Amino acid sequence: MENRKKIVLTGDRPTGRLHLGHYAGSLLNRVKFQHEYNQFIMIADMQALTDNAEYPEKVRKDVLEVALDYFAVGLEPNINTVFIQSLVPELAELTMYYLNLVTLARLQRNPTVKNEMEQKRFGGNVPVGFLIYPVSQAADITAFKGELVPVGEDQLPMIEQTNEVVRRFNNLYNGQILVECKAVVSRVTRLPGTDGKTKMGKSLNNAIYLSDSSDVIQKKVMGMFTDPDHIRAEDPGKIENNPVFAYLNAFDPDKITIDEMKAHYQRGGLGDIAVKKHLNEVLQELLKPIRKKRQELEKHPEEIMKILKTGSEKAQAVAEKTLKDVRRAMRLDYF
Amino acid sequence: MENRKKIVLTGDRPTGRLHLGHYAGSLLNRVKFQHEYNQFIMIADMQALTDNAEYPEKVRKDVLEVALDYFAVGLEPNINTVFIQSLVPELAELTMYYLNLVTLARLQRNPTVKNEMEQKRFGGNVPVGFLIYPVSQAADITAFKGELVPVGEDQLPMIEQTNEVVRRFNNLYNGQILVECKAVVSRVTRLPGTDGKTKMGKSLNNAIYLSDSSDVIQKKVMGMFTDPDHIRAEDPGKIENNPVFAYLNAFDPDKITIDEMKAHYQRGGLGDIAVKKHLNEVLQELLKPIRKKRQELEKHPEEIMKILKTGSEKAQAVAEKTLKDVRRAMRLDYF
Repeated sequence: MENRKKIVLTGDRPTGRLHLGHYAGSLLNRVKFQHEYNQFIMIADMQALTDNAEYPEKVRKDVLEVALDYFAVGLEPNINTVFIQSLVPELAELTMYYLNLVTLARLQRNPTVKNEMEQKRFGGNVPVGFLIYPVSQAADITAFKGELVPVGEDQLPMIEQTNEVVRRFNNLYNGQILVECKAVVSRVTRLPGTDGKTKMGKSLNNAIYLSDSSDVIQKKVMGMFTDPDHIRAEDPGKIENNPVFAYLNAFDPDKITIDEMKAHYQRGGLGDIAVKKHLNEVLQELLKPIRKKRQELEKHPEEIMKILKTGSEKAQAVAEKTLKDVRRAMRLDYF
Repeated sequence: MENRKKIVLTGDRPTGRLHLGHYAGSLLNRVKFQHEYNQFIMIADMQALTDNAEYPEKVRKDVLEVALDYFAVGLEPNINTVFIQSLVPELAELTMYYLNLVTLARLQRNPTVKNEMEQKRFGGNVPVGFLIYPVSQAADITAFKGELVPVGEDQLPMIEQTNEVVRRFNNLYNGQILVECKAVVSRVTRLPGTDGKTKMGKSLNNAIYLSDSSDVIQKKVMGMFTDPDHIRAEDPGKIENNPVFAYLNAFDPDKITIDEMKAHYQRGGLGDIAVKKHLNEVLQELLKPIRKKRQELEKHPEEIMKILKTGSEKAQAVAEKTLKDVRRAMRLDYF
């Protein structure tokens, strides 16, 4: 029996510091499973540029910010391969070969891309780089022979597209070089924003960042959206679509206390301020060690970049091997 | 005053042996100008794969066939940089960055691609790799800072698209790193096929190949389409849309004799067979030394591949420098 660790491909676009949504949705799992899996964690600068071509300086800065967040939450550099996408040029080459195996119609049918294009109101003016990012993602995953890919529900079509490329490649080039991957859908539901909107995001200005100061966290928590009909403490309140309780569900380890508070809130007598104060305590406790560690790490950005360099070299070596196999299968192994 | 040779980027897709159309349209000029210009001559295997993904073995074989034709017609390996596209991975990286600067709508408006897509009846099922090949071409040209690009009339939109990418890149990343190129439109009109169709092509089965044997050339010439109304030798004949005269125009160095034959043909009294016999002599004389040289070269394919390896290494070094500048401008120069 094969006893090696399964390969996981995951990562983030460097488009800002990471927030509680990232923490609940992916970072926590990455930390939890870092000994169990062989994790390739990609800082996707090339992907960030597909719709941020105008802001290269920001993308570069955010590469470091994201890395700081990674190591602050406890991802260990020696166990995980944390790397910068553009430092693995093999990914661009693989993308070019895969693009011949995908039709425009198929890409335009991809529901994830379709959705995102609508959100960004691109229309026909979508940058081609953005349109093809599912194919680029297929390259990212297959280059490392990724077997498990943690995704949100809405990203499942991306995995399907990757596996289509894998099957078409293996059929066409008569090989078993590329490996199909499996989506691992996060059990944590998407964390809402502090304003109650369904998604926490930088552009929506409704996010609590892992690097926020104690004061900022408190201010954001005390200003959170709750049940708008819960005017006086003695009134019954709703816990559905109430982000304060969503956050408690996600981050308060004391499930018994949460259940009591929920019941109390629903029957009336528990004010928003009291619940928010409790949430503030929970988040302060959660984020304080992360922030402290981040502040230490921030003092030596060159050390962080060194880790990314080492990780990128390691990732590059793996991708190089895959590309070599791919080129051999495609009869491009001239020498 | 700068005295260096201007940089030319040119090349062919390895999708078959080269024929008289290639010879008249591009090869002859490349040979003529090889001392005057710094020519990068690309065997575009990646581009060939964009609509030949199913035939990798054929593409590989044709890389050698095209190279044999190149050196047989007199392109000198030590003067020109003859290289294989896929051996310059920087071209894939540049393409990925340029794809962010081009919209889908703009690509779909490119008349050359639109035409080719119609000819190939792709519709929405166009492979994305094929759709984006103008951007890939922008990478090919700019990687070598190509200043002159020999093209047919119908390829002008490709050059325009390249220069749009150049301008957008230089504007966005605040640099003068990329160089705009100029199209050099071949004065030779497109050589018709032996059947009189407007284009000579492998798939149309109407081409005379540089490597055709003496017998095959004769057979193809004697079977050529002429003026269909020119039944008897004594009748007047038309020289317009008459490929026999088009070939004489292109390949017979004796312009006086051609003019006499044309006049004779038009007033009547000159039979098709006589004209074809003359054309056959002209083509035999033209192609014999090319074929002889090719047969010599065919004996040592490993020598040809060695030349391509050296050329590709040289090309790669140039492209690497450009990519380094590009990455610096895009703030991707992490280390």
